[in-house]
Amino acid sequence: LMIPNMYKIAAEQLPCVFHVSARTVSTHALNIFGDHSDVMGVRSTGFAMLASSSPQEVMDLGAVAHLSTIKGRVPFINFFDGFRTSHEVDKIDVIEYDEIKPLVDFKKVDEFRARALNPEHPHQQGTAQNPDIYFQNREASNKYYDAVPAIVQAEMDKVSALTGRKYNLVDYYGAPDADRVIVIMGSGAEAVEETVDYLNARGHKVGLLKVRLYRPFPQDAFVKAIPETVKTITVMDRTKEPGAQGEPLYLDVVSALNEAGVKKEVLCGRYGLGSKEFNPSMVNAIYENMSGEKKDRFTVGINDDVTFHSLNVTEKIDASDASAISCKFYGLGSDGTVGANKNSIKIIGDHTDKYAQAYFAYDSKKSGGITISHLRFSDKPIRSTYLIDQADFVACHNESYVLRYDMLSDLKDGGTFLLNSQWEPEEMDAKLPAAMKNMIAKKHVKFYTLDGLKVIQEIGTKKGVNTVMQAAFFKLANVIPYEDAERYMKEMIKKSYGKKGDAVVAMNNACVDNAIAHLKEVKYPQSWETTTTGAAPLPVPNDEYFKNFIAPITAQEGDKLPVSAFTPNGYVPTGTTKFEKRGIAVSVPMWDKDKCIQCNRCALVCPHATIRPTLATAEELADKPATFETKPAIGVKGYEFRMQVSPFDCTGCSNCVAVCPAKEKALTMVPLDEAIAKEEENWDYAANLKETTAELKSVNVKNSQFKKPLFEFSG
Amino acid sequence: LMIPNMYKIAAEQLPCVFHVSARTVSTHALNIFGDHSDVMGVRSTGFAMLASSSPQEVMDLGAVAHLSTIKGRVPFINFFDGFRTSHEVDKIDVIEYDEIKPLVDFKKVDEFRARALNPEHPHQQGTAQNPDIYFQNREASNKYYDAVPAIVQAEMDKVSALTGRKYNLVDYYGAPDADRVIVIMGSGAEAVEETVDYLNARGHKVGLLKVRLYRPFPQDAFVKAIPETVKTITVMDRTKEPGAQGEPLYLDVVSALNEAGVKKEVLCGRYGLGSKEFNPSMVNAIYENMSGEKKDRFTVGINDDVTFHSLNVTEKIDASDASAISCKFYGLGSDGTVGANKNSIKIIGDHTDKYAQAYFAYDSKKSGGITISHLRFSDKPIRSTYLIDQADFVACHNESYVLRYDMLSDLKDGGTFLLNSQWEPEEMDAKLPAAMKNMIAKKHVKFYTLDGLKVIQEIGTKKGVNTVMQAAFFKLANVIPYEDAERYMKEMIKKSYGKKGDAVVAMNNACVDNAIAHLKEVKYPQSWETTTTGAAPLPVPNDEYFKNFIAPITAQEGDKLPVSAFTPNGYVPTGTTKFEKRGIAVSVPMWDKDKCIQCNRCALVCPHATIRPTLATAEELADKPATFETKPAIGVKGYEFRMQVSPFDCTGCSNCVAVCPAKEKALTMVPLDEAIAKEEENWDYAANLKETTAELKSVNVKNSQFKKPLFEFSG
Ligand code: SF4
Ligand code: SF4
Ligand code: SF4
Ligand code: SF4
Repeated sequence: LMIPNMYKIAAEQLPCVFHVSARTVSTHALNIFGDHSDVMGVRSTGFAMLASSSPQEVMDLGAVAHLSTIKGRVPFINFFDGFRTSHEVDKIDVIEYDEIKPLVDFKKVDEFRARALNPEHPHQQGTAQNPDIYFQNREASNKYYDAVPAIVQAEMDKVSALTGRKYNLVDYYGAPDADRVIVIMGSGAEAVEETVDYLNARGHKVGLLKVRLYRPFPQDAFVKAIPETVKTITVMDRTKEPGAQGEPLYLDVVSALNEAGVKKEVLCGRYGLGSKEFNPSMVNAIYENMSGEKKDRFTVGINDDVTFHSLNVTEKIDASDASAISCKFYGLGSDGTVGANKNSIKIIGDHTDKYAQAYFAYDSKKSGGITISHLRFSDKPIRSTYLIDQADFVACHNESYVLRYDMLSDLKDGGTFLLNSQWEPEEMDAKLPAAMKNMIAKKHVKFYTLDGLKVIQEIGTKKGVNTVMQAAFFKLANVIPYEDAERYMKEMIKKSYGKKGDAVVAMNNACVDNAIAHLKEVKYPQSWETTTTGAAPLPVPNDEYFKNFIAPITAQEGDKLPVSAFTPNGYVPTGTTKFEKRGIAVSVPMWDKDKCIQCNRCALVCPHATIRPTLATAEELADKPATFETKPAIGVKGYEFRMQVSPFDCTGCSNCVAVCPAKEKALTMVPLDEAIAKEEENWDYAANLKETTAELKSVNVKNSQFKKPLFEFSG
Repeated sequence: LMIPNMYKIAAEQLPCVFHVSARTVSTHALNIFGDHSDVMGVRSTGFAMLASSSPQEVMDLGAVAHLSTIKGRVPFINFFDGFRTSHEVDKIDVIEYDEIKPLVDFKKVDEFRARALNPEHPHQQGTAQNPDIYFQNREASNKYYDAVPAIVQAEMDKVSALTGRKYNLVDYYGAPDADRVIVIMGSGAEAVEETVDYLNARGHKVGLLKVRLYRPFPQDAFVKAIPETVKTITVMDRTKEPGAQGEPLYLDVVSALNEAGVKKEVLCGRYGLGSKEFNPSMVNAIYENMSGEKKDRFTVGINDDVTFHSLNVTEKIDASDASAISCKFYGLGSDGTVGANKNSIKIIGDHTDKYAQAYFAYDSKKSGGITISHLRFSDKPIRSTYLIDQADFVACHNESYVLRYDMLSDLKDGGTFLLNSQWEPEEMDAKLPAAMKNMIAKKHVKFYTLDGLKVIQEIGTKKGVNTVMQAAFFKLANVIPYEDAERYMKEMIKKSYGKKGDAVVAMNNACVDNAIAHLKEVKYPQSWETTTTGAAPLPVPNDEYFKNFIAPITAQEGDKLPVSAFTPNGYVPTGTTKFEKRGIAVSVPMWDKDKCIQCNRCALVCPHATIRPTLATAEELADKPATFETKPAIGVKGYEFRMQVSPFDCTGCSNCVAVCPAKEKALTMVPLDEAIAKEEENWDYAANLKETTAELKSVNVKNSQFKKPLFEFSG
């Protein structure tokens, strides 16, 4: 909705900066995550555009954007990757306002103010112009755009002088005699940079061109930044414009080289749409493509088994620097895992010279879904702008996950696995599924368990499992000496809970101390490597769509689904949430057939369609379960009536009870367990009875409830 | 506001066609006219895009778009130039619905209907997708885009079979062995086509590539369409994206050539922003540039004296076909000139084999402004998509224009000029300005005059001047034999006025007959060629801005203003309408000092600030005009008060009279002439008195009116 205004802001030369956490424009589906489709969609507006690759650059180039717009009158977009950069927790060097102030061109600020609409010296803008003069006036702004690159470079130099961090319009990184380079903008550049180091250390000669000023496109600076030795260039765009001759950055690069008379082979690829991962293994595949197959207009990060544009990522590489420690934490939404991790980052970031980075991947369900925290600690600035796929340490805060998720594929050989569970080490053989035991043994995992609940119960507190797990993390991951960590944790506790009194502080301190006491290493036999016994994995409902599509996604394996698994227009079947048996209600309604007047209002009012009326003949009910009680249906001769609740799907809102108009309510809320025991079998039975609607005489609201609902159990 | 929806429409594969009369996106100023900035602004959305160059193509390619979207699921934009094509009146061959029907793929229509949301077989679309699966799904649409070019070509072939008019994804026109070609979309292609014929007939070898399918860009078809002999290509874009590495079509062309490994020199230019003219003389300059200076990133059609990107258009060429007759009519908004011309077009279009084209250029003021009608008649289809600058016939329907506009520069040598005036031929020497007389004699103009008002007055009717002028046009321009024209005009009169009775028909017929009788040729001496005497041109107010900027624009010479005449951000001074003394009121208020209670409400309520209170000391008023009556000012000692109207600027709305709270109204409306005679001098005198506000004790609504208003006389 801003787009028409952006044309006007630019043309009216109103200095301003839009800091844009670039996100995906909705297409076949809504995706709230990141790519460059939104900013690329406004590249026609006349805004200047700067691309930042990391939180530090957002700070630094943000300052450059503000300084430049004041100087040059052209408005700026300073964009960076939504979520990957905007939601990354990172240790950065902050530029203070009073450091920036001397750099501001206040003369230009005054000029701008003098140009503002003001009744003391009025003028008009935004008049209507006819064909006779519009074009000439439009060309009058050329010189301001021509001036932007030099202005931006000058401001970059000033900010560099302040911070020591050097930026250019286009920055080259890599071998001075590279034969292959990647051109890229945004957070992906950091992952490429890591990979460049990795590959050059292994005898390759590769490089990277980071385009920082994208509009006005700095043709000269771009061409100059390319080493002469380069033979092949691959331009990576994080957007898709269906039907375009090429994605935007690619078209610019080709044109820039052509105008400069520089002949190089140029390939192009798409990556990272909707925050799809982009990691060194994929970058490696891009460099391999340049010296091998030379696939053009490719995609990377997915398996395109329909139009076959995707690159194969054959090798999994670890390009992060040697001093880095990578830790992954599996938690349940709102269980406090994320908060504890933010706390750990702060402790290490504030008290040591180490750099720290955290990124939190959430399920789209707000609470009750899985959270995976990705934490890195390093002696050097961290350029790993991707999820951890080579972890030193993995913690699982929820024992039920062992049956649901593959948490160990991304653990390094010899890494540490910490499981919060009530199980004793000797129970693990029975409690873990075979696949997990195989992985533990094969990877020589150091396996620890800790009963967080027991620790806090012994102390006599209700909260604190996360403090327990945090202490265990510091003990095992060894990012900093444990004695230091213990001291910092306790200082933090004092700061957080000091006001609540010494008892609370003591209890929290006890959590830390007792955690270490309760930590148990699980010694496992090497035979786990090949065992086929263990806990049974969760059963999967017998539905093709669910098995092939929903199940992989809920198991956090959606990345592996190939293009052919999808309908292009985003078409999906309805009613699939019925397969997610969640059991989230505390209590659910129980039906009393004697009190019920068969009005169906409970079914109508239920927002989740989890209470349904049933009609069936005595004949059809011959094989009914013992507790499947019915009464003669009112108005439908020869049929029996029953109101059936699905205890696993009901959310426990009790709307149905509230609406029930029977003299004495025919529904009462009972505990979930009790209802499951009695009603689960009945629900399955009712769901399989054939639908009886043909016999109903009139189409009315009551009778509508006998039809199968179109949406079941959403939410 | 549609833009986000367009991404979704495309990605959800909803077949549809947007027929877009492409217009200018507002930037430094609003421009309601045409260029491609709006459609280029949505090229990222995933819509397919077809470009039509003429009203006939809008019809033909419109059908292609509809047929293709049904077949291929990809939505289409069929765009054509706003105003130039959308507002052109043209004789075209209409395709009827029953001719198109057999071409429609109804199986695909049914498939589309089956995909629609429907409660009988429900499905979901537009779900939320996370990073794990979004990218894969986005790539699932590739094959539909890959299929579009072949689908469009197939549908073009079908429509061709129906109409005999052949279209390709990219059409080449010109010499098979051309050395220079222009790539262009939209109405400009027609002007280029004319120029190609003109130049090739004169020994050049030039050509034209019309891109018809712009998205998905048909790379193969494009490259194949270029003759091998071509050395230099110029891509013309009708949009400006400040800061872009190049305009959109140019970037696509460079990339297409690069990928195909075709090495050609590629230049680029911008033209026609905001409906700026684009005519064969400019096209000629583009071809000349390719064999001469080879200026790149140029503009054409303007004089860029700031950044010097514009091409010089040195030669004025006439590339229209030899059988064409071009006629220009100068009228006053709502005086009926445009209607009469539409009528003439219809007569010739319907009754003869001739092709006819009309384009009406309006002033931005809705009525009361100048209208210039451009009519062409030809034995061949008319490709002249530009205003007439080489007219065979010019008619001026308003005698006052001889002092305001240069109407004869665009008349051919030996052309005909018809002036509606009350002047006898022998008066012309005194009534016409010297410059006009010079032009008439130099160009050997056949000069006729006709007193339209006198003709209708003699007949005794109030309307009909346009019928008179129309008859004279048919007589003089000789597009068809006059007897035929007379018959057709009278048939039309019968059809239009038959219901109103024979008397009305007879009167109108008399207009036709008497017109010819009253038509007088003006014989002028050859000495007019160098005469320096004649009517004085209108005086121009002594204001720099008005003289240099507004005056050329109101004289229809705005095209000649160079870039340096403009502030880039569209900044203009206020209060300049005060220089346009219009005198449009029928009656204006006259002030009665004895009744006035000095409340200033009349000044406050006047929407045009044309009634202002005056405060001045007796001393200051020493030299006042005789009728400049005043009375002692209430509340400001030593000052005299007067309420002054500007009769030329007042619109006659009488709001001031209505609001006047004096016991007996102190204002009465009097005829304009009377007020001008008395008050014009007074207004000028009052306007030059110094502003008296310092002496006012309080800031209130009444006193605010003593300040000079910020906006004067708008509207
Ligand atoms: S408690 Fe709420 S969700 Fe459960 S059956 Fe009743 S209305 Fe439905
Ligand atoms: S609302 Fe109460 S009375 Fe009505 S059908 Fe449901 S349980 Fe029976
Ligand atoms: S008649 Fe209307 S325009 Fe004229 S002075 Fe009065 S209020 Fe103003
Ligand atoms: S509104 Fe009437 S009384 Fe008031 S200032 Fe005007 S003319 Fe005088």
